[in-house]
Amino acid sequence: CPTDPRLSTVSQGRSINLAMSRRARAALALVGLEGELLRHGIPMRARMIHGPAGDTREIPYDQRTGQCIYSVGRKFLNDVLLSAAEKNPHVRLHFGHKMTGGDLDEGRIEFERADGGAGTVQAVGDLVVGCDGAYSGVRRLFMKKPMFNFSQTYIEHGYMELRIPPTDDGEFAMPPNFLHIWPRGEFMMIALPNQDRSWTVTLFMPFAQFEAVTTDRELLTFFGKHFADAVPLLGEEALVRDFFRSKPQPLVSIKCGPYHAGRTLLLGDAAHAMVPFFGQGMNAGFEDVRLLAGLLDALGGAGGDLPAVLRRFSEHRNPDAEAICDLAMYNYIEMRDLVNRPTFLLRKKLDNALYALLPDVWVPLYNAVTFSDMRYSECVRNRMWQDQVIRGFFLTLLVFGLILILTVFLRS
Amino acid sequence: CPTDPRLSTVSQGRSINLAMSRRARAALALVGLEGELLRHGIPMRARMIHGPAGDTREIPYDQRTGQCIYSVGRKFLNDVLLSAAEKNPHVRLHFGHKMTGGDLDEGRIEFERADGGAGTVQAVGDLVVGCDGAYSGVRRLFMKKPMFNFSQTYIEHGYMELRIPPTDDGEFAMPPNFLHIWPRGEFMMIALPNQDRSWTVTLFMPFAQFEAVTTDRELLTFFGKHFADAVPLLGEEALVRDFFRSKPQPLVSIKCGPYHAGRTLLLGDAAHAMVPFFGQGMNAGFEDVRLLAGLLDALGGAGGDLPAVLRRFSEHRNPDAEAICDLAMYNYIEMRDLVNRPTFLLRKKLDNALYALLPDVWVPLYNAVTFSDMRYSECVRNRMWQDQVIRGFFLTLLVFGLILILTVFLRS
Repeated sequence: CPTDPRLSTVSQGRSINLAMSRRARAALALVGLEGELLRHGIPMRARMIHGPAGDTREIPYDQRTGQCIYSVGRKFLNDVLLSAAEKNPHVRLHFGHKMTGGDLDEGRIEFERADGGAGTVQAVGDLVVGCDGAYSGVRRLFMKKPMFNFSQTYIEHGYMELRIPPTDDGEFAMPPNFLHIWPRGEFMMIALPNQDRSWTVTLFMPFAQFEAVTTDRELLTFFGKHFADAVPLLGEEALVRDFFRSKPQPLVSIKCGPYHAGRTLLLGDAAHAMVPFFGQGMNAGFEDVRLLAGLLDALGGAGGDLPAVLRRFSEHRNPDAEAICDLAMYNYIEMRDLVNRPTFLLRKKLDNALYALLPDVWVPLYNAVTFSDMRYSECVRNRMWQDQVIRGFFLTLLVFGLILILTVFLRS
Repeated sequence: CPTDPRLSTVSQGRSINLAMSRRARAALALVGLEGELLRHGIPMRARMIHGPAGDTREIPYDQRTGQCIYSVGRKFLNDVLLSAAEKNPHVRLHFGHKMTGGDLDEGRIEFERADGGAGTVQAVGDLVVGCDGAYSGVRRLFMKKPMFNFSQTYIEHGYMELRIPPTDDGEFAMPPNFLHIWPRGEFMMIALPNQDRSWTVTLFMPFAQFEAVTTDRELLTFFGKHFADAVPLLGEEALVRDFFRSKPQPLVSIKCGPYHAGRTLLLGDAAHAMVPFFGQGMNAGFEDVRLLAGLLDALGGAGGDLPAVLRRFSEHRNPDAEAICDLAMYNYIEMRDLVNRPTFLLRKKLDNALYALLPDVWVPLYNAVTFSDMRYSECVRNRMWQDQVIRGFFLTLLVFGLILILTVFLRS
């Protein structure tokens, strides 16, 4: 970081809200911070789907047990984590250093100071953990190693953040305990509640479609047609100002592996950046930490086998990280399009009924990902198995139906 | 290149043989070089499959019209192309320059001279074409651009080249007009004929399996078990020497896009490096050139629209390049494993029968890729359509069979 992020007032260029669910909570609980974040997060119990005519309907996240996901401000989370880390006497925080190079095998990283002083600064560690995000500088050193698999995929859609302020009497302008979605097929808008009773609104749309909107009139016509109920809440003037002041930002999905090289390990977005449509980016990052802590407890420690810990981490985590990257990509189609289709809602109903009946056996995909500790790769296998059961059931019905018809026909 | 490759005697660290087929021939024909390469290439009419007991059987590449693929030495190809280019008064060749940076939008590339002289050398072009291979330096500049998709995937298998010399009376030690394959499930060995009547033998195997062979005894036991008929041809002494003198080399598959940025374009392995199992790496590269030449003729030329040419090239070529990368990956499983299975041979027979019957309609995948100009992506769609027809046919048979049985049963 150029400076201590606690000193800045906004998290520039990055999404303001994070959706905290089971996996982040489990990791935060390990360091005694779950309670504090839960108290400040805003629970979202269901999706609220906004139709083009302003009609709304709710789709609960967890009909069976009523669990929710929590809207948490990125800045608040940063502040809480940094202040807690600072209290630990073994932790020293350094800001204002830009990574410029290093050696993964020696666990050495080189920095330049943002203020230009002191030339190159070097830091050497028994273990270096690169948590430096989707455009990781540490990962750039991995790229020079043989046998490092890597992919970066940009989607054709970009995002832009807008804002719905609190009402004049200081209240939420929409029902607060929901993640609001305006699914429109090829594009969509969502809104997450903030603690100051404003909403962070995010428009996801193909870049070409962003570029096609060039005048105030075109913008208001477009919003009037697709997001009519949101326009008075956003405010026409603010909408026009914010839209033309900002540029749509790209969305990238990054997979790589192995996550370790020498004394160095990649965690979080540096290891697996995903599109934001499953709300699992932060959750997956925190789950990395929990897995690493568990492996260090089991295999590491004083005189422990650190190379084995790192190797095991890579092997175990890679299929799960790639699974959630894929699920996040798939969920974009679900959120902006499928959610509008009768077959999707029928499947959701069927899933929920079976889940209520057989809670240990039939856990729907969204619930397994969001409200359980099931490995992400296992969530995918689970869903494939469920799909097969459902297909098999209907196929069997069909065959029996045909035989019945044929029997009746031939007997008559 | 560090020096003119015509001055060196070997192509170090790279596969010595290339399999030339339709697509490379079509591009070479455009510059009048097809004949020269055909005269020096060694035609391979069929695969020769070597069983573990030394038994062999042939699987022709093109039963219907007898077309073949040609084994061509990499060095010979380089020499022919460079010497032809040199004769063109518009072409100037520079060797001994190492690329160090550049600017894609300005079409400027920076070099250092291998002899350390002259500081940085700059070259500016209206169009810069980066054909600098799988580990392309030009592509490294693309990585800094937003919205550039990229993936590099290493497979778990490495390769090592061995050699079968000519016999004492100067003849080929095996029937020459074949690509010899020893498919062994998890690994395989192949051999391609050289003009000097030697064979280039390539062993493909998981790295872990290479590492497990540590002594002369283990090596000879392994070869005795799996490649018994090849051991006397390789020579025990030479086999042991070559195996332990070299290290298995990695195999990488690289996809990216778009291929253009500013005034710069990526072609060949720089744009799409593939594993070598379909023998299409060089063919795809030369087809790139043919496509580019066609687009330049149609849209480019004096006062032409170069940006449109580059955009069109990226759009048109990307799905085809990714398709052949995928096919090459798939073909590895086919070559080392499926080729041994009865279902594979049955399908091959069925494909060949239908191809003979309906040559314009039913072109088998291998033939479409190797002996036609059909777009690679179209070859894949073609195969999927054929798969559906075959599945549909057997499903229909099954249903009619069931109805027949049921009818007979109920009527009786």
